[in-house]
Amino acid sequence: MEKLLYGVAYYREYLPEERLDEDIRLMKAAGINVVRIAESTWSSYEPRDGEFDFSQVLTVLDRMHQHQISVIIGTPTYALPGWLAKKHPSVMAETPQGVNKYGHRQKMDITSPVYLFYAERIIRRLLAATARHPAVIGFQVDNETKYYDTCGSHVQRDFVQHLKQQFAGDTDKLNAEFGLDYWSNRIDDWEDFPPLESTINASLGAAFQRYQRELVSQFLCWQVRLVHEYRLPQQFVTHNFDFEWRTWSFGVRGEVDHFVASRPLDITGVDIYHPGQHALTGAEIAFCGDIARTTKDNNYLVLETQAQAFKNWTPYPGQLRLQAFSHIASGAAMVGYWHWHSLHNSYETYWKGLLSHDLQPNPVYHEAQQIGQQFACLSPTLAGLKKCNHVALLVSNDSLTAIDWHPYQGHQFGRHKQHQYNDQVRSYYDALYRLNIEVDVLCVDDPRVNRYQLLIAPLLYAVSDQSLQRLNQFVEQGGHVLYSFKSGFANQHLKVRHQRQPAVIRETIGASYQLFVEPHEVTLQSDVLQLDGEDAVVTDWMELLETDGADTEIWARYQHPYWDQYAAVVHHQYGAGTATYIGCPLTAGVLSGVITHLTRRIELTIDNGGLRFPLVVKRAISRTGSALLFLFNYSAQSQEVTLPFAGGHELLTGSRFAQGSVLTLPDWGVAIFESETA
Amino acid sequence: MEKLLYGVAYYREYLPEERLDEDIRLMKAAGINVVRIAESTWSSYEPRDGEFDFSQVLTVLDRMHQHQISVIIGTPTYALPGWLAKKHPSVMAETPQGVNKYGHRQKMDITSPVYLFYAERIIRRLLAATARHPAVIGFQVDNETKYYDTCGSHVQRDFVQHLKQQFAGDTDKLNAEFGLDYWSNRIDDWEDFPPLESTINASLGAAFQRYQRELVSQFLCWQVRLVHEYRLPQQFVTHNFDFEWRTWSFGVRGEVDHFVASRPLDITGVDIYHPGQHALTGAEIAFCGDIARTTKDNNYLVLETQAQAFKNWTPYPGQLRLQAFSHIASGAAMVGYWHWHSLHNSYETYWKGLLSHDLQPNPVYHEAQQIGQQFACLSPTLAGLKKCNHVALLVSNDSLTAIDWHPYQGHQFGRHKQHQYNDQVRSYYDALYRLNIEVDVLCVDDPRVNRYQLLIAPLLYAVSDQSLQRLNQFVEQGGHVLYSFKSGFANQHLKVRHQRQPAVIRETIGASYQLFVEPHEVTLQSDVLQLDGEDAVVTDWMELLETDGADTEIWARYQHPYWDQYAAVVHHQYGAGTATYIGCPLTAGVLSGVITHLTRRIELTIDNGGLRFPLVVKRAISRTGSALLFLFNYSAQSQEVTLPFAGGHELLTGSRFAQGSVLTLPDWGVAIFESETA
Amino acid sequence: MEKLLYGVAYYREYLPEERLDEDIRLMKAAGINVVRIAESTWSSYEPRDGEFDFSQVLTVLDRMHQHQISVIIGTPTYALPGWLAKKHPSVMAETPQGVNKYGHRQKMDITSPVYLFYAERIIRRLLAATARHPAVIGFQVDNETKYYDTCGSHVQRDFVQHLKQQFAGDTDKLNAEFGLDYWSNRIDDWEDFPPLESTINASLGAAFQRYQRELVSQFLCWQVRLVHEYRLPQQFVTHNFDFEWRTWSFGVRGEVDHFVASRPLDITGVDIYHPGQHALTGAEIAFCGDIARTTKDNNYLVLETQAQAFKNWTPYPGQLRLQAFSHIASGAAMVGYWHWHSLHNSYETYWKGLLSHDLQPNPVYHEAQQIGQQFACLSPTLAGLKKCNHVALLVSNDSLTAIDWHPYQGHQFGRHKQHQYNDQVRSYYDALYRLNIEVDVLCVDDPRVNRYQLLIAPLLYAVSDQSLQRLNQFVEQGGHVLYSFKSGFANQHLKVRHQRQPAVIRETIGASYQLFVEPHEVTLQSDVLQLDGEDAVVTDWMELLETDGADTEIWARYQHPYWDQYAAVVHHQYGAGTATYIGCPLTAGVLSGVITHLTRRIELTIDNGGLRFPLVVKRAISRTGSALLFLFNYSAQSQEVTLPFAGGHELLTGSRFAQGSVLTLPDWGVAIFESETA
Repeated sequence: MEKLLYGVAYYREYLPEERLDEDIRLMKAAGINVVRIAESTWSSYEPRDGEFDFSQVLTVLDRMHQHQISVIIGTPTYALPGWLAKKHPSVMAETPQGVNKYGHRQKMDITSPVYLFYAERIIRRLLAATARHPAVIGFQVDNETKYYDTCGSHVQRDFVQHLKQQFAGDTDKLNAEFGLDYWSNRIDDWEDFPPLESTINASLGAAFQRYQRELVSQFLCWQVRLVHEYRLPQQFVTHNFDFEWRTWSFGVRGEVDHFVASRPLDITGVDIYHPGQHALTGAEIAFCGDIARTTKDNNYLVLETQAQAFKNWTPYPGQLRLQAFSHIASGAAMVGYWHWHSLHNSYETYWKGLLSHDLQPNPVYHEAQQIGQQFACLSPTLAGLKKCNHVALLVSNDSLTAIDWHPYQGHQFGRHKQHQYNDQVRSYYDALYRLNIEVDVLCVDDPRVNRYQLLIAPLLYAVSDQSLQRLNQFVEQGGHVLYSFKSGFANQHLKVRHQRQPAVIRETIGASYQLFVEPHEVTLQSDVLQLDGEDAVVTDWMELLETDGADTEIWARYQHPYWDQYAAVVHHQYGAGTATYIGCPLTAGVLSGVITHLTRRIELTIDNGGLRFPLVVKRAISRTGSALLFLFNYSAQSQEVTLPFAGGHELLTGSRFAQGSVLTLPDWGVAIFESETA
Repeated sequence: MEKLLYGVAYYREYLPEERLDEDIRLMKAAGINVVRIAESTWSSYEPRDGEFDFSQVLTVLDRMHQHQISVIIGTPTYALPGWLAKKHPSVMAETPQGVNKYGHRQKMDITSPVYLFYAERIIRRLLAATARHPAVIGFQVDNETKYYDTCGSHVQRDFVQHLKQQFAGDTDKLNAEFGLDYWSNRIDDWEDFPPLESTINASLGAAFQRYQRELVSQFLCWQVRLVHEYRLPQQFVTHNFDFEWRTWSFGVRGEVDHFVASRPLDITGVDIYHPGQHALTGAEIAFCGDIARTTKDNNYLVLETQAQAFKNWTPYPGQLRLQAFSHIASGAAMVGYWHWHSLHNSYETYWKGLLSHDLQPNPVYHEAQQIGQQFACLSPTLAGLKKCNHVALLVSNDSLTAIDWHPYQGHQFGRHKQHQYNDQVRSYYDALYRLNIEVDVLCVDDPRVNRYQLLIAPLLYAVSDQSLQRLNQFVEQGGHVLYSFKSGFANQHLKVRHQRQPAVIRETIGASYQLFVEPHEVTLQSDVLQLDGEDAVVTDWMELLETDGADTEIWARYQHPYWDQYAAVVHHQYGAGTATYIGCPLTAGVLSGVITHLTRRIELTIDNGGLRFPLVVKRAISRTGSALLFLFNYSAQSQEVTLPFAGGHELLTGSRFAQGSVLTLPDWGVAIFESETA
Repeated sequence: MEKLLYGVAYYREYLPEERLDEDIRLMKAAGINVVRIAESTWSSYEPRDGEFDFSQVLTVLDRMHQHQISVIIGTPTYALPGWLAKKHPSVMAETPQGVNKYGHRQKMDITSPVYLFYAERIIRRLLAATARHPAVIGFQVDNETKYYDTCGSHVQRDFVQHLKQQFAGDTDKLNAEFGLDYWSNRIDDWEDFPPLESTINASLGAAFQRYQRELVSQFLCWQVRLVHEYRLPQQFVTHNFDFEWRTWSFGVRGEVDHFVASRPLDITGVDIYHPGQHALTGAEIAFCGDIARTTKDNNYLVLETQAQAFKNWTPYPGQLRLQAFSHIASGAAMVGYWHWHSLHNSYETYWKGLLSHDLQPNPVYHEAQQIGQQFACLSPTLAGLKKCNHVALLVSNDSLTAIDWHPYQGHQFGRHKQHQYNDQVRSYYDALYRLNIEVDVLCVDDPRVNRYQLLIAPLLYAVSDQSLQRLNQFVEQGGHVLYSFKSGFANQHLKVRHQRQPAVIRETIGASYQLFVEPHEVTLQSDVLQLDGEDAVVTDWMELLETDGADTEIWARYQHPYWDQYAAVVHHQYGAGTATYIGCPLTAGVLSGVITHLTRRIELTIDNGGLRFPLVVKRAISRTGSALLFLFNYSAQSQEVTLPFAGGHELLTGSRFAQGSVLTLPDWGVAIFESETA
């Protein structure tokens, strides 16, 4: 993007009165320079089968263009018209709970040929009508696409074909690799394949979920190709990805592989929602942004984030601005609010936009005006900035699925609803975030892993021998890896390894275990780490680690009448690098201590002046090559900071600061420093 | 009613042995003068399709009549015979969870023509056999009727016709008013109507629920008309309404509009169940009674209340009597127990009657004997008493439904199971009850509202412009209204108003808000109210009120680092009256303080001698015009009371008291004073 | 059994690599002398319809035999091949939740003729191939059989026929006994029978569950008869029963009558899982063992128990041995682990065997080696030992079902998922266990009750007049019975008795009640028992007992403002014996006090030296007639013990001890004393 985009989702169709001109006037006054439209309102454009009416869209395009507001057109395929579901019931997905009923969005079968036929037609018609309009800068294909649990017989049939190919038709190989003899689940004829939705074989269930994730990638790719037939060279194609939802964007999605699905896009788009008010930390802005940025090693669009939304998100004064610049500091090229105006009907009336239901300026809107102004001013410096991180977090959809089947917490088994995988991933990510260690986020198989000094691998449970061997090699050649418990336990088919654990990576960590137990009144003790009593508690899971040789360092041991001879955290030099292994979940404080100790030990360059949360430091390099340092105060108290940066000027105030200057950042405050020396 | 009715539900069919004579002997000894029979036992009277046998009923009628016990006959239509469900499966309701299975009562489709055919036949046969029997004083049509989630295709078809009429066939109007463009839910052909049970459009869902409530009123009206063909002029027709059930009668029902459905009845009947033992407060007796009395501005029948029932309800000594006179003091013409004898089989064996399973006298029965005696003695004075209240509580089925869709508590959305609406309604009602401010309860559109000095409107969320304008007028002309948060927010179709909130009523309250948030560590502060720290806490919801002018009084503000410039409670003179608005849920203590302050401010006449709960004061006027004052001690401690009443005599003891006398009311005690000067 | 069996479940089919020889080597080294195979792997032996391959089994048999390891063959019928479910969907059970889908084990319909056809064929083929193999010492029919909620129309039809016979075709009798007039549930034609899965009539529901339990007994009997056609005279037939599962073996099963179902077996087999680590008490080992032993008054097989299993069960050092000898002390003839090797795939990868996933020796395996050695040494003394208890606990499947319908705890009604019956049964059992009072466990109708001095009857709710009269007679003739609340309340059809409660047994306890209530701030007070404040609290349920005469002793009363005239615990001489009745749930401490007081009062011979938990004492008589005393330390602290036993030698160490010697038992320690004088 040439300039920072500041946008809103705009639904003229939902408004209780005609006020396009008034809306545009208020948008302009707030510095809004892009609107996202059309992705939710298929039935408004095709009210009856084959009757099209894009006049609403065209009017918006004309009027926005008149006022130099750009438009992103969404293909309206994630919410079906009622007449389509009525006429062709087969468009509704068949799920383990039965066939979906019409009403909610995202209940269709994305593999249904009937759905695809109608989806293609509305996409083609909409694009034919709008693509060449000068207001249009890009397209969003579909919205927050998942596979919506689709598992109808045609999906299962295709999956079986897929598996048959993978196993070259050899059921014996399949039975052996998936352990199907168990509970008499063998498959000796491909025709005898059992229903997938009720399988208790985790290997089979996980393979099916991987296949379902691929359906999402294929569907998006299909839409991108359609759009390519219409778009102009300067127009981009994006998608709006979402994250595991825990009333806000929390973690990796089990239903979509962000890395694969974003490949056909020109630029990755995401929505990022996060706790607000006293609970605002910025961690989700950073986490989701780091994923989005890493997918294509590039800037990304925040197509949706909260303006007021829920009653517990309405920002305190200053927070909206803090949030906006935090997105930019992670590499966002756009900050877009969902949505312009609060809704007056239907379902999400509680989810407030930049305007309240009264459609008038309000305190939040006034803060947006300030942001819009600053974006416009700083766009030349802040658009197109680059990040350069030395640490990467490894994530894995396969491990997420596997931990759903084999959770470490609690005594229930079978598919878990709450993704414990993300609990650990976020526990590691958040520790890094609070230490101001910036990271990229990628998959274990990504060839880019070699460019980092340190890889963080929480719950890397289900992963192939080759992948782990690559990590061993990475260490041997001087890299560093930090693993959590359960890493390396099973292969990509969820078959538990039958070597002494953690099997393939054992040689790099210099330790192993045979027993794992549930801790009861267990704490950690360490000669190396500073542990404080309360924080050193171990819960849920512990692996009884034994070192393989004297050169393995024990960073922490368990304190317990019977398990105290076992290690909890070990560290080991292997070739030119090191591997560290943590055998149990750690509290935030202890994990922070382990990471700090590790970074010192491996002399990782972290240039954050020792600042820690609630002060958040982010670095970047501007398009012109200047160094940027963002400083955020994520607290309700003003903070004194010694500037950890070569001298430069602060962009929002224009003041100059020398290195080591002491400045005061107000509550929820922002400062951005630029130095000519990168 | 000429005399107080003291009754029991009697099921000769359920008894494990022949003992009609013994039962009548015990009833007579306890002063029981009416039994209610037949409403649950269709299959006993029609054991096979078209085979009728009313001999059980007729024997009971004869024997009761012999001993001057009257009988209320129930039409036995709320529990189907098994053969009917087997022969005609279509009588079972189709619900969002599928077609009901036979077993439980109240699982049929009250709109099924097959059901209606059989129901009509059993009603006609039963009435033909019994109506002219001299024991019969009245009829109860069906029992605790609701619509039982019926939503089969015929119901939905009729609803669509109903909506089509309402919108004069204009789908555009429907789409606009209900906001159906949202998530592509537009309906451009009436034939394309989506399934209602899965809609996410709150306007549509609420309209359907309103329609379903009308089905209940229609069904009861149909039964009343049938009964009219048989009953004698002196025989009444009633129905047994129930209330929102939270293991006891708690609040307004979402499934039936008590006010509309009671219109065709001669007298309203209800069942009232309430916490017992240490948890007994009498609030439910008063609340449900106030609704029942207001429906027809008349006395009402308590057709069911607890004798022993649950293990946590079995009354302490004195409580059964306290309860009985509390019903009378609210205007009940009958106190009927469910039921005479505890059940020996099936489902409700845990729900004990006046007799335990041993069918012998017991301590509770002995207390009933005392009540029966006193009822007989005092009947001339206490039968047909009238109430005259100056305060009314406004309730609204539409707002209940709307708050189910858009709850103020928690972060879940979509249809809520627990009716938060009733939480607030009861919070306001209970505050009034504990202050000894007696109220009537009516709907916002009731023309009778004009006869009150003060209207209390909790969560009046979904209400038409006209209704609110009438309330504005009421204030202008000298009335007083107290609104809670969220009142006036949306119109009758749940469309949120797009004026500055609370829109129509803003002018009367002299304040408005744009933002609402979830409180976190927020308390109230006030120069006007006496707040004590712990009690002044705000939870769940807060509207950030701003006064519109200097004449608006701020009774309380929020204490919070960022929201302290906003008001929480405002009060405003408008015309000759005042309006008060409370922007957040209040604790019982604070709400009590606000109401007390308001009543003083508007100089409301409350003649309760300043007594408060656990002393409960109720006033009434006897048929002969004398003034009655009931005094109840709802506690396990005896209480000293200065009599807040013109001198008179106490009816239970016969003693005379001068005004200002000090008397001691024992634990769970009752006193009733009569003064000749009304 | 001639010798102690020490075994594992072995699944060659599940192993990730060929290692039969290595496994046998490790087994031999650990003293494993029996393996249990084949019960889970039908699809491995019949990979396609009619294609059989028993080579895996035969290889295992040959190689085990070569190394003198015996084999128990399981019929593989509890887990179906996928092809069978695909070809004949009718084999899957129809349940109240719909037709089961394939995947999980134990989802079939055990009454389906199609299933029975295929099950018979695989059983016959497997037995024909293996039964005469010299390695085979016995057979296990099916595994953990229940009825899996089967309630398809054919099951219901047969049940109705069954009921018709029971009531000699007389629906009036049925209606009267089951109280079907209630809620119009009468059945006046057998053809009109309603669906059982949705009935609200507890009598009907309980009768159906009793019928379903019979299906289990019939199914097992059918399999036993099949096996009889193949087995040799010296080979036994067993079954692996399980217990109510609360993440471990907790109580009596609602779905199987262990006493009836074990009749056709030669020896009863069970699986026993229990809390481990700090939560290990041995109570489940004793409880389940006592049931298993009593079924046939003989030794029994522990076919499955935990080696490592769950993360919270992996034993502390010493615990595996403590557990093993605890089984033996209760009369087990075999201790078998589930399973040899941890699973690498599918579902139960978390359930670890004797070997971890690495298939190598580990600390738990090493402890097993020690056990194997000691079993081999002590087999001549410990095999075939007998118990001789003077106390019996009465259990009742009917009462379990009845309490599910009419729970004493909470306010919910209808079928309860959590069996509150077992809460009380275990509360009584555990009190006895901790007092070192050993018991047998039998059904109320068992003629063997007469051989005991004291019967303990918790929640004996649903039981016939005759049975209770037999208990009255038992007392009259000098026996002693201890009843809990709710005992004797209803007859075998769940019809509540309409005499003053507890009806039939009232004369023996010398007390009765009419009222029962939920306690609120109620404690017990006693002149007889030593009660400590906190422990004397009453929760959930209390019967207001009144004594019938002066000779009834009141052991405890309620403390409460209104209920303090009522008794809580009464004791009464009746004929030559006594009956004791406890009207409310008691805390562990108070219950222990009541039992202790009772045993003293009736001068029950308990020869345990006054030792109490965590010291556990078990007595037995060896095959040669010598007396054995097992002493267990169920704690992490070592314990000093004065030996409560005639002098003898300790079998594990060979040391001799005189009576009254003081010895120290280490944490989780075991000692076994033998004396020549029995």
